[in-house]
Amino acid sequence: MRVLVALGGNALMRRGDKPDAELQMGNVAVAVKTLAQVAERHELIITHGNGPQVGVLALESAGDPNLSKPYPLDTIGAETQGMIGYWMLQALQNALPGRQVLSMVTQTLVSAVDPAFDDPTKFVGQVYDQAEAEKLARENGWIVKPDGQYWRRVVPSPMPQRVVETRLIRKSVRDGVVVVCAGGGGVPVIRDSAGRLSGVEAVIDKDLTGSVLAEALECDAFLILTDVPRIMKDFGTPQQAEIGHTTPYELRAIDFPAGSMGPKVEAMCRFVETTGDMAAVGKLDQALEILDGTSGTIVTPNATWPLASTL
Amino acid sequence: MRVLVALGGNALMRRGDKPDAELQMGNVAVAVKTLAQVAERHELIITHGNGPQVGVLALESAGDPNLSKPYPLDTIGAETQGMIGYWMLQALQNALPGRQVLSMVTQTLVSAVDPAFDDPTKFVGQVYDQAEAEKLARENGWIVKPDGQYWRRVVPSPMPQRVVETRLIRKSVRDGVVVVCAGGGGVPVIRDSAGRLSGVEAVIDKDLTGSVLAEALECDAFLILTDVPRIMKDFGTPQQAEIGHTTPYELRAIDFPAGSMGPKVEAMCRFVETTGDMAAVGKLDQALEILDGTSGTIVTPNATWPLASTL
Repeated sequence: MRVLVALGGNALMRRGDKPDAELQMGNVAVAVKTLAQVAERHELIITHGNGPQVGVLALESAGDPNLSKPYPLDTIGAETQGMIGYWMLQALQNALPGRQVLSMVTQTLVSAVDPAFDDPTKFVGQVYDQAEAEKLARENGWIVKPDGQYWRRVVPSPMPQRVVETRLIRKSVRDGVVVVCAGGGGVPVIRDSAGRLSGVEAVIDKDLTGSVLAEALECDAFLILTDVPRIMKDFGTPQQAEIGHTTPYELRAIDFPAGSMGPKVEAMCRFVETTGDMAAVGKLDQALEILDGTSGTIVTPNATWPLASTL
Repeated sequence: MRVLVALGGNALMRRGDKPDAELQMGNVAVAVKTLAQVAERHELIITHGNGPQVGVLALESAGDPNLSKPYPLDTIGAETQGMIGYWMLQALQNALPGRQVLSMVTQTLVSAVDPAFDDPTKFVGQVYDQAEAEKLARENGWIVKPDGQYWRRVVPSPMPQRVVETRLIRKSVRDGVVVVCAGGGGVPVIRDSAGRLSGVEAVIDKDLTGSVLAEALECDAFLILTDVPRIMKDFGTPQQAEIGHTTPYELRAIDFPAGSMGPKVEAMCRFVETTGDMAAVGKLDQALEILDGTSGTIVTPNATWPLASTL
């Protein structure tokens, strides 16, 4: 099978952790144990989140007195692709001797007229009080909005259309190379009327990019690995239950609260609806069991769809 | 021809410049004009320096109160590969429509018993007074040395042995892909007795890595592009003269002051001596003229060696 795994940003760094390099490299080594097992059996493409890491570097850049203004989000996203891409490259090479591993810097194309640009909704970086937030907004051209009792910067989160380097990724995967790419959902770029690419101040949901890339690469399975074993229905009610196997039709009927499984569910549904292949979400250390259908929440086009592992 | 171009770190940011992203992206666009001309005629591999950029990110990391300790140099080097690699990727794609461009995160293997580890000599980061430098050295395990009237951190600069991802680079070049790799000389790694790679606190000379990579890729020409038009002999004397065409034998007889052209000369001589092919150094905007033998300082095995362009 050809498998795309999207690794949660919190697989590298949990909320409240100190963002030290050593800690993150240790977490990468743990994540790579399960990824290496997948790579030994299947063609493998790996994408990863970068939310916490972008937060760290953006804060450092904003506090750098040598800069006229902080680095833009496309550049900071690219920094995290280099950093996390290096950690994963080395850990995968160590776990898979004799196998080639490619860690690529990649861009993700979004539409310049995506409605998200008119209504930025994605919180990035630290919290401020209202006065400070509005001062920073004036100084840096930011948009800021209340987040609970504090204020934070918001940026657009447009829909990914295509990973610009898809052709190179496909070629490497066909050659048996394990590819790490589209980190953080990819560096967000738009294409102007002359065909030229340029970066934009936005962040792209890494699971939606994973879905688009898995579709373009004709993957047999799109796996989201995180810290949750299964999607729950009727969460917090007496009827609450784990979902083992479901369909996009059933999933779309469930109302997921904002900031929860919503984007992951959307990404899986899109992949399954478009390709007729399987998507799944589950715990990081159970990738093989998820592919076998014995763990996680499996999403297939219909309830009688045979699991990929039985094909 | 197959050409490897090593781009000086100051092609992106000059001493005294504010290290703003916009300024560096503008400089990348200028550098890419000449690189695109080379790519239209030849197979092209591009490496680049990262000294000033590592300085900026290391300083930001050292000042981050959320970290237990600053990020190590392998991780910061990887960040700059992502950042500069993204800028070059996008600029090259814009300059070469229809051509595939690959920007890779790569590691460079050094020997764990390289004598450089016993005697760190490469200054990195900002200057301090002696007391502050010694305090930082105690806190962070740094070695510090006097640099003129101030003190600075020094790190080892071991000899590059091989770019770990050489095989993937060669494959892409053969497929007609323009490859950006080995940024900053590559992320420095050693291999332990079990064959496992790990990063080390060191920096690698980007021209020496360029030479090793050009040799491994069997390049016909190894070009160092910088802001100096030609190597001078008898610099600062009445006999001072530009060198147009020379040999390793002649170059090695000249005594270059530390911190000047020394490492570039060493890198070119090694490539020419090992391969019998041509190396050259010259101004950034004259890459084509240098390959034609009408600009820069050309180094060939002997004085009657035909220039590559005439073969």
